[in-house]
Amino acid sequence: MEKGTHIGKPIRCKAAVCRGAGEALLIEEVEVAPPKAWEVRIRVICTSLCHSDITYWKMKVPPAVFPRIFGHEAFGVVESVGENVGEVKEGDFVIPVFLADCRECVDCKSEKSNMCSSFPFTVLPGMRDGTCRFTDSNGNVLHNFLNVSSFSEYTVVDINNIVKINSDMSPKQACLLSCGVSTGIGAAWKVAGVSPGSTVAIFGLGSVGLAVAEGARLLGASKIIGVDLNPEKSEIGKKFGVTDYVNPGECGEKPVSKVIIEMTNGGADYCFECVGLASLMNDAFACCRPGWGKTIILGVEMRGSPIPVSSLDILRGKTMTGALFGGIKAKSDIPLLLKRCMDKEFHLDEFITHEVGFQDINKAFDLLLEGKSLRCIIWMDK
Amino acid sequence: MEKGTHIGKPIRCKAAVCRGAGEALLIEEVEVAPPKAWEVRIRVICTSLCHSDITYWKMKVPPAVFPRIFGHEAFGVVESVGENVGEVKEGDFVIPVFLADCRECVDCKSEKSNMCSSFPFTVLPGMRDGTCRFTDSNGNVLHNFLNVSSFSEYTVVDINNIVKINSDMSPKQACLLSCGVSTGIGAAWKVAGVSPGSTVAIFGLGSVGLAVAEGARLLGASKIIGVDLNPEKSEIGKKFGVTDYVNPGECGEKPVSKVIIEMTNGGADYCFECVGLASLMNDAFACCRPGWGKTIILGVEMRGSPIPVSSLDILRGKTMTGALFGGIKAKSDIPLLLKRCMDKEFHLDEFITHEVGFQDINKAFDLLLEGKSLRCIIWMDK
Repeated sequence: MEKGTHIGKPIRCKAAVCRGAGEALLIEEVEVAPPKAWEVRIRVICTSLCHSDITYWKMKVPPAVFPRIFGHEAFGVVESVGENVGEVKEGDFVIPVFLADCRECVDCKSEKSNMCSSFPFTVLPGMRDGTCRFTDSNGNVLHNFLNVSSFSEYTVVDINNIVKINSDMSPKQACLLSCGVSTGIGAAWKVAGVSPGSTVAIFGLGSVGLAVAEGARLLGASKIIGVDLNPEKSEIGKKFGVTDYVNPGECGEKPVSKVIIEMTNGGADYCFECVGLASLMNDAFACCRPGWGKTIILGVEMRGSPIPVSSLDILRGKTMTGALFGGIKAKSDIPLLLKRCMDKEFHLDEFITHEVGFQDINKAFDLLLEGKSLRCIIWMDK
Repeated sequence: MEKGTHIGKPIRCKAAVCRGAGEALLIEEVEVAPPKAWEVRIRVICTSLCHSDITYWKMKVPPAVFPRIFGHEAFGVVESVGENVGEVKEGDFVIPVFLADCRECVDCKSEKSNMCSSFPFTVLPGMRDGTCRFTDSNGNVLHNFLNVSSFSEYTVVDINNIVKINSDMSPKQACLLSCGVSTGIGAAWKVAGVSPGSTVAIFGLGSVGLAVAEGARLLGASKIIGVDLNPEKSEIGKKFGVTDYVNPGECGEKPVSKVIIEMTNGGADYCFECVGLASLMNDAFACCRPGWGKTIILGVEMRGSPIPVSSLDILRGKTMTGALFGGIKAKSDIPLLLKRCMDKEFHLDEFITHEVGFQDINKAFDLLLEGKSLRCIIWMDK
């Protein structure tokens, strides 16, 4: 498409549409409306699949909604911008981020929070005016997802959810930093504040958990214990700084928390839950060290169950905390992560286990569901 | 008694003995053995009653044990010391503290912990060798309580639980700082780190809760909301810096957490639970602010129930933590508090609502049980 041709007009392009919970995505021709005020239309260059896509793809009841265009990890180039957008312009390279960063509310201005209070996080579809920019060939609305909807050749994203990046960044690496990997690294860095020589236990060695390990390694943790039921994670973990591996399925009668307390001589300084199970959150809390141990929740509890936290354990000086997006503030922290990535401090490439063309997007779902992939890069032009 | 007369010998003196759960204390003649190695025998000058005494006094099942000598807030003078004790000597003024501070373990050496790992906190009786120093007139053992047992004219305390203080300190004020008041002030100062201009909600305006308010006031909190079912606490709270009062019994259909979220424009920066009820701990957590809100648990959950923490709320950047003794490290922090007290920064006298002679110790129980007292000073020589 010629530069500038479609400014102010809808674009017809291909998108992977999900028409029902758990159903294979269909590559359809859709119409992407031009960006309204505060919005940016992006040509997606590559995208990747995250577990949160799977969670809402599987979900049969509200807040799930169909038909919908999933995807929220991506790298792209600005095609056009709506009114009031001065931060980026046509041709800029950007990554969209599910969590807003308005830079003006009390939260976005605070060092302590990444929960924009002017544009609060929601899993409901819609742009800031409540409407969506996608329609199918019959003129019916296609709902967007997590403010991004990157499983489309073009998408429209609020300027609050856009991070401008340097043109010399690798598209794949930029894509990875738009959600999962930043979440893990951010959690070790910003939420836990892992200290040199400390001990870390990570429950769940998916991309987020492995990124926690990578972050903890960079911050100088001396022991990084990975906990996962999949024995293959023992070898995979080593690439990301995991020094010790525990398979809860092989602990016999002994609770995994007890195993970790023994391995760390009294409990880990930091425990991370990266799965989304209340029982595992409780295990993580049980094996963090009295006195100063911190448990950091990153997984979204699948059933919304509360965590049955021991009030007596809390009194022993333990802390439980958590964050969306690992406490990362999109517009200020991602550029820092990108720089460290350019400086080759992070082993980002190890996260990319597969790459497919857009037509094969359902293969990315299969790989993640089967536990075979960490991140599968989906190239829009292949 | 003449100075030095009893060194190395047992002392016969009066103690208030509890012979069964919930029974009135009996003033009996008891024998207090001389201090063994690492131990200090103290003549108690005054003591006060704390809710933790009441909790274990009421308790009918283990870890409760009878007959027992309660009391763990006190001020006294060293009568004699056992072997290996160089830190204090006969005639020194001291306060005993239920939580050990050995100064040598990894926890005691760390700025982050007050949970001595060499001499871990326990509610079971016994000195470090497992035996007690009290016997009754029939030669039967009387169990000690929380390493202190100050409801006796003389008691024996481990050197790890002794803080030496200046002789010019008021006995009443020193006594107060040995547990409850230090817990509240410490929680605001060391556990929460209350910041200037912040908002605070305190669930339960007993001595601990009011001491939290006092600490938060000193640290510059702009709004300090007290939550208590007793309407008299509205006026009492003002003396300790409470700026706003909420009576959950007068909130109608509206949950108290919602009331506080409205009063603080989105949630309090710090919420403190000072009662010991899992449901209240949950309320406190519900009304702390997303992004950076901290809930600090100080109450000992009466039934040992877990706190049903919302995992989704945790992901919004909230933190739950807690501490025994408000995170205070006995030997290093209490002297700092004492100095601030001497400098009249704290309103300690307001905590002292009653004073009785030792013979009337059961009156102190009645007053606290009826919610009429904050702290009742019990003078041993009156």
